[in-house]
Amino acid sequence: MNQPITIVAEPLTAEAFAPFGEVLQIAGAPDRIINQGKCGRYHDLAGMDFTPEAGGRAGISLFQAELRPMPYLLDLLERHPLGSQAFIPMSPSRFLVTVAEDDGGKPGHPRAFIAGPGQGVNLRRNVWHGVLCPLDGTGLYGVVDRIGEGDNLEEHWLEDPITVTG
Amino acid sequence: MNQPITIVAEPLTAEAFAPFGEVLQIAGAPDRIINQGKCGRYHDLAGMDFTPEAGGRAGISLFQAELRPMPYLLDLLERHPLGSQAFIPMSPSRFLVTVAEDDGGKPGHPRAFIAGPGQGVNLRRNVWHGVLCPLDGTGLYGVVDRIGEGDNLEEHWLEDPITVTG
Repeated sequence: MNQPITIVAEPLTAEAFAPFGEVLQIAGAPDRIINQGKCGRYHDLAGMDFTPEAGGRAGISLFQAELRPMPYLLDLLERHPLGSQAFIPMSPSRFLVTVAEDDGGKPGHPRAFIAGPGQGVNLRRNVWHGVLCPLDGTGLYGVVDRIGEGDNLEEHWLEDPITVTG
Repeated sequence: MNQPITIVAEPLTAEAFAPFGEVLQIAGAPDRIINQGKCGRYHDLAGMDFTPEAGGRAGISLFQAELRPMPYLLDLLERHPLGSQAFIPMSPSRFLVTVAEDDGGKPGHPRAFIAGPGQGVNLRRNVWHGVLCPLDGTGLYGVVDRIGEGDNLEEHWLEDPITVTG
């Protein structure tokens, strides 16, 4: 048994999250103004990747997740080798995003981010991440991920769970 | 000048909206339970259609729209000949969805729906619809639509605007 490890969740920023994917948020001026000036379009924010050569395509699903308390005990990381996965919260709320770079086929040391109101994320294909952890709000998310045949889930249980604090 | 026309918005249901697209909502039991029982997945709810033969692909954008008051004066309908378009509200709020079946290349008589908290919509490719009309909430939406070259917008201004009441 190793020393218990605690990591502290960071605020979610595009720069800090760049190794893992994109932050879906409005920042700065919109790319286009539409609807006679009444709507700003922030265009094409996610790196979508659905391995069409393996029969995949984009789909929209809804996830209804239980709220999780902090501190969160991170014991499982998973990844999707066949597609990116985007989470769009359907309430202006916070959720915990845990991710890790790959280290020879298993997750390296995890990092944790707290997405704030108005922020979603897109996880790049094959990025290790923890399960969906709403901290408040309705727990309802629009999810854009790969629809298709094939084994698109790899799980890694941590021998020594990690405590994530806010 | 014709007689002014008023239409009354209906509640948004999957059945009533079926000629135009899909309602993105959780209803009944989830298709899959994931994350050790803590998350329900309502799977692949939208008919995605991005004309890859014309160079299109799915993308995620964010729309920040001004709130609109009711009654709403509907003077413009538009359609996207090259792709479906999904709206996922990022607050548990209401928005007005106006649509019309095609009548020889222009919109037929419009119908109006009020999407409630937790409801999004996916508009089928080439379905006539009004602009994004949040009635309350933050006015922030995740939008999944076609990214690609080509003229993907057709507009039709109504000679006699239509009043939409709640």
